[in-house]
Amino acid sequence: MSGAMSKRPEFCDAARQLLGERGFTQDPELVDPWLTDWRGRYTGRALGMASPATTQEVSALVKLCAAHGVPLVPQGGNSGMSGGATPDDSGDALVISLRRMNRITRLDEDAREVTCEAGVILQTLHEAAEAVGLRFPLTLGGKGSATIGGLISTNAGGTQVLRHGSMRAQVLGIEAVMADGSVFDSLVPLKKDNRGFDLKQLLIGSEGTLGVITGATLRLLPALADRAVLWAGLDDIRAARRLLVHTQKQAGDALEGFEVMPRHSLDAVLAHKPGARAPLQQAHEWHALIELAADASDVDTLHDRAQALLESAFEAGLVEDATIAMNETQAEEFWTLRDEIAPAERALGPAMQHDISVPVAQMAEFVAETVPQVEAHFPGVRAVAFGHLGDGNVHYHVLAPAGAVPGEWEASQGKDISAYVHDLVTRWGGSISAEHGIGQLKRDELGRLGDPVQLAIMRQVKQALDPRGLLNPGKLVPLAREAHSH
Amino acid sequence: MSGAMSKRPEFCDAARQLLGERGFTQDPELVDPWLTDWRGRYTGRALGMASPATTQEVSALVKLCAAHGVPLVPQGGNSGMSGGATPDDSGDALVISLRRMNRITRLDEDAREVTCEAGVILQTLHEAAEAVGLRFPLTLGGKGSATIGGLISTNAGGTQVLRHGSMRAQVLGIEAVMADGSVFDSLVPLKKDNRGFDLKQLLIGSEGTLGVITGATLRLLPALADRAVLWAGLDDIRAARRLLVHTQKQAGDALEGFEVMPRHSLDAVLAHKPGARAPLQQAHEWHALIELAADASDVDTLHDRAQALLESAFEAGLVEDATIAMNETQAEEFWTLRDEIAPAERALGPAMQHDISVPVAQMAEFVAETVPQVEAHFPGVRAVAFGHLGDGNVHYHVLAPAGAVPGEWEASQGKDISAYVHDLVTRWGGSISAEHGIGQLKRDELGRLGDPVQLAIMRQVKQALDPRGLLNPGKLVPLAREAHSH
Repeated sequence: MSGAMSKRPEFCDAARQLLGERGFTQDPELVDPWLTDWRGRYTGRALGMASPATTQEVSALVKLCAAHGVPLVPQGGNSGMSGGATPDDSGDALVISLRRMNRITRLDEDAREVTCEAGVILQTLHEAAEAVGLRFPLTLGGKGSATIGGLISTNAGGTQVLRHGSMRAQVLGIEAVMADGSVFDSLVPLKKDNRGFDLKQLLIGSEGTLGVITGATLRLLPALADRAVLWAGLDDIRAARRLLVHTQKQAGDALEGFEVMPRHSLDAVLAHKPGARAPLQQAHEWHALIELAADASDVDTLHDRAQALLESAFEAGLVEDATIAMNETQAEEFWTLRDEIAPAERALGPAMQHDISVPVAQMAEFVAETVPQVEAHFPGVRAVAFGHLGDGNVHYHVLAPAGAVPGEWEASQGKDISAYVHDLVTRWGGSISAEHGIGQLKRDELGRLGDPVQLAIMRQVKQALDPRGLLNPGKLVPLAREAHSH
Repeated sequence: MSGAMSKRPEFCDAARQLLGERGFTQDPELVDPWLTDWRGRYTGRALGMASPATTQEVSALVKLCAAHGVPLVPQGGNSGMSGGATPDDSGDALVISLRRMNRITRLDEDAREVTCEAGVILQTLHEAAEAVGLRFPLTLGGKGSATIGGLISTNAGGTQVLRHGSMRAQVLGIEAVMADGSVFDSLVPLKKDNRGFDLKQLLIGSEGTLGVITGATLRLLPALADRAVLWAGLDDIRAARRLLVHTQKQAGDALEGFEVMPRHSLDAVLAHKPGARAPLQQAHEWHALIELAADASDVDTLHDRAQALLESAFEAGLVEDATIAMNETQAEEFWTLRDEIAPAERALGPAMQHDISVPVAQMAEFVAETVPQVEAHFPGVRAVAFGHLGDGNVHYHVLAPAGAVPGEWEASQGKDISAYVHDLVTRWGGSISAEHGIGQLKRDELGRLGDPVQLAIMRQVKQALDPRGLLNPGKLVPLAREAHSH
């Protein structure tokens, strides 16, 4: 904040007047914690931090920003992975926190819909749904801080996308404040509505560059009555693909998750996590974690179906070995093995991490072919891919050679490695950002690798809806003329 | 076509040169049948009709149109309900038929995906999916002529939206030619992709005003193994709502359709359709038609679940009487009663038809409250609502008083009645176009009743992506400055 407070005194006075003491602050103790992104990669500066309490206040504030030409950076829980909610270091921008707007305004149990403000925390929403026997079918590691507005702005993913889709699929309606301060209100959910362009789809995933999301109506689902969690040992990731296809045929809508991990990842977890045990006795090159789930309408047959799935997979020669968790405790243990991969690998040393996707049908082939390519191109590294095979989305980590010095290694090799991985992904028709968004982290890579036609359309849309470029500048849209200015 | 052929000879020569004799015609015998919309409400004129065979030809043609300032009207099966594919009567525009582009280029049985050109007919797609044990989960009356490109451009609905969503939900990727002739290619389906604005969502439902859709990748589902069709008699449409909520709880994902019809509609069908029989002995004020369906993974328990649903509905006092179709023949008979409502009511005399939606939770209340209002406001008419209660979407027909003269009555009262119904729908937070789109039919009503902020954004997007207004001019977007010029 140093030096920032002297900037734009007229604007800051007007913002304080508009929002009151609780709604606007320049106190470094209050503001600074929100100027560094969650992963600690970016630290910016800001004119101050606004915390409006209502959509009307957001609207008035955005109008004020427009009148004074002040750029603004919307922020929810500040748990994004790509620096999308961190201002640049010019100190010219205002951070707008939506965290005070945290009311659930309507929860219709029969219609299975909830309407809430943008600042509601995911965990809070989960609890509200559970309290009435329903569930919100999206979850992720940062659920204790991630807000609904941030999740919509980044079209967040998570571990339940396979069956239920990403955040986009949960959104029935949104409310947002546009660049001129006008309020786009489509909170009323219509299952069928063909009155022209579906503008809410444009705002979902736009990372605050087209509008500030202030509220949403979301779908809810019946609570899960039970789940069956299976663990399979496989000789090859291509076998995992065949098992996935088989499982989709056998289990139908019951398939809730299908995750894969290589031997290296499981070994790392077993070494790192006290008390962790391998579900199978023998070692296998690959492992699949499969979850089937049922709500009250079809819970009776769930475990029979899981058993039948396993038997048919054995019969078809699709697995080397496999087991079903005997109870909920063991099911949790299986999932812990999956969830602990990231910390376990961090303990092994530095790594470049990539959040990538290719067509679901090609992910196994992609991993099988490119892992040796990466390891050959950068001698000494180890490439490890694990995660959401059912979504065509893996975490593709490139681990440093033994003895590499943290910090130094990333600085010297990191950019080349990521560019190499992103080139491979692009050649396979995939995405350099499967679920974490672009933010400032990948903006230049998107500019380098994105389809020129799609980039041109993005720029046209951005120019049309935010002609002065005040909404979250420097994020997501690789504007040709400012590609390196932030 | 009279008079049109003398227009723009240079452009027409160039188009003929580009596309060959098969790809460009001005022969009135070939062109005229495509200048009147399916319902016969609109007849336009055109410079000619282009029938490109490839995306590259569409691209070159659109560039040619741009160079000569020639407006273009994309057309699929010409079975739209709102005149969206019919040119205006200036004769300045070129009709671009996508019907020659009718190849299915990829069908991946394991991935359950199909990629095809825009001109593939829905029925053809159904057959291709069935041939490999899958199904495409969207169907509608015009399936023998409607094309995939047209269905995407209008975000078509149909009778399976309740469970599977409208066309938007089936689209994994699209290819489209933009106003400058550039090709937007997102045919490769990525289940997770967060590289910025989801531009394909903008093109879906844009009725050819932002780009010409040339291809798509669509999801497929397992074939249905069996269905159970129930018919329930109810005393009130509010009871239908309660039964819907109950059914959703009991049947979960198995619920494939939930349609309602009033006594008047059933009586009309029984009088009109030879051999039609009422499923229940007693008369009821309202009827619900419920379909549960299962694929191979859960077919074993389907009929037990249907029986349990019926019993619990009786126990809960939700139905007056009900029955389950004993076999597939009877199931078909039940559905025929539903499908014959429109022709049966047409036989009763003229009617103003409205394709409307309100929030699903409010549709029953909306019908119960507004039917008497409409009938009181226009003495002698009868208002009848039937259809997709589960989608919050009903066909809301206002039947002429006895003895009204067809043609005369619509001309004298039609516009007032529709405006009155649309006003009611708008007041209830609903949509004046649930599934048929805006086209030219409802463009002015959208301009009159649409939210000003949303209309402003639509105009900004249209201006950004088609600055010269050459793509399907006069359709969908109520541009303030041309509201009455076409």
